[in-house]
Amino acid sequence: MIKKNSVENFTIHTIGVIRSCFVEKFGIPRQPGLAPSACAEIELVEPYNRQEMVQGLERFSHIWIQFLFHETLSEGWKATVRPPRLGGNRRMGVFATRSPHRPNHLGLSAVRLLGIKTGDDRVRLELGGVDLLDGTPVVDIKPYIPYADCLKDASAGWLSDDFIKISVEFLHEPAEFCREYERTTGRKLARLIEEILEQDPRPASQRDRKHHFGMMLWEVNVRWKIDKERCVVTACQTLEENG
Amino acid sequence: MIKKNSVENFTIHTIGVIRSCFVEKFGIPRQPGLAPSACAEIELVEPYNRQEMVQGLERFSHIWIQFLFHETLSEGWKATVRPPRLGGNRRMGVFATRSPHRPNHLGLSAVRLLGIKTGDDRVRLELGGVDLLDGTPVVDIKPYIPYADCLKDASAGWLSDDFIKISVEFLHEPAEFCREYERTTGRKLARLIEEILEQDPRPASQRDRKHHFGMMLWEVNVRWKIDKERCVVTACQTLEENG
Repeated sequence: MIKKNSVENFTIHTIGVIRSCFVEKFGIPRQPGLAPSACAEIELVEPYNRQEMVQGLERFSHIWIQFLFHETLSEGWKATVRPPRLGGNRRMGVFATRSPHRPNHLGLSAVRLLGIKTGDDRVRLELGGVDLLDGTPVVDIKPYIPYADCLKDASAGWLSDDFIKISVEFLHEPAEFCREYERTTGRKLARLIEEILEQDPRPASQRDRKHHFGMMLWEVNVRWKIDKERCVVTACQTLEENG
Repeated sequence: MIKKNSVENFTIHTIGVIRSCFVEKFGIPRQPGLAPSACAEIELVEPYNRQEMVQGLERFSHIWIQFLFHETLSEGWKATVRPPRLGGNRRMGVFATRSPHRPNHLGLSAVRLLGIKTGDDRVRLELGGVDLLDGTPVVDIKPYIPYADCLKDASAGWLSDDFIKISVEFLHEPAEFCREYERTTGRKLARLIEEILEQDPRPASQRDRKHHFGMMLWEVNVRWKIDKERCVVTACQTLEENG
């Protein structure tokens, strides 16, 4: 049970933990749904690892994950931030953004619910289209209710959804690596890399001065080069090979 | 800044407080947006009462309010609940519902942002279509981002949006009261009462055995009787007159 410490402070608990393809922050899509192949699991923790607590949830196509931006906890919050979608050079109030540098560091993502696995005292929810870092503490799960949550007359302020996707190509070797990886793990790595890179994950500050980038997806180190609107995946290696 | 007490516990703070027409739980719509005339304000508390923290938010039509169901904190959480929309006789896992009796007691509502008032060290957001109790502690405010939040292909599980509205009539005296109240306060009381009652706020357990009900909206005691699908507002009185 939640404890009310004072008028203004509340203690909340982790109810589950995210296991995700995103093992580092760089490369994570800026909102859920942008990379449909980005998969994750929530594993519920004690005492919430009971099948009955999610009974009926399997009938919803999408769910809300409320979580903590645990990697920015130590950095604290900021009154204003520079959103990447504004080119990184205009300040907005933090409450006018979805930045992790917010008071209470609460995150909110609507994701696809692919399935629920139970057994051996474990309850795991399989998710698609995530923007969640591996190890993220989950503090609530709710059904996505279209009539209350999908506001068809909402307008998006300074955000627009017509951002430009960049084209993504693979060199022969990483393309081969992805095929073999998918064959042995079932993970659609090539499609996932495409979905991530076509949105150009570079911070605005690096766009003019850096051309080679890398990120980790699961245990795979992915490297690419980028020039104007053209992106080429140059290498994919597992951490073992790489080290 | 948020403090990490241990692996699993986090302390969160109130960033604002709700001032709402709903001064008691009975009568509150079961989701936001169902009663568009239901108005509220968030007043930001120190050290978050700074205009710059909401700069840019005025360009969004809707915002997310993350809050605590403070009135159910002392009741704790339940593994399963009986949702009113299922007639109150079927159990669902609490994570498959939006019930307040959930671990961490976190609530989530998308509401219309009508305006932002600043001045005298106060920052107030004016909201429409709320389902929020007066005094609710707010723990986060985020812009509603249509491309990430409005999922047009989401399916609603056991919920459907084609619930039946009941018809609402006013006796002469409460109708007169509402006209006078609106004239002096600017609050559209009659329309708000209609929006609330046409959704039938009675708990399922009371539908067959009780016919007279009352609720408080601001300082007004509203009374009505209900018989099958017909509802008649029988009295509206301010607390002073009433007491």
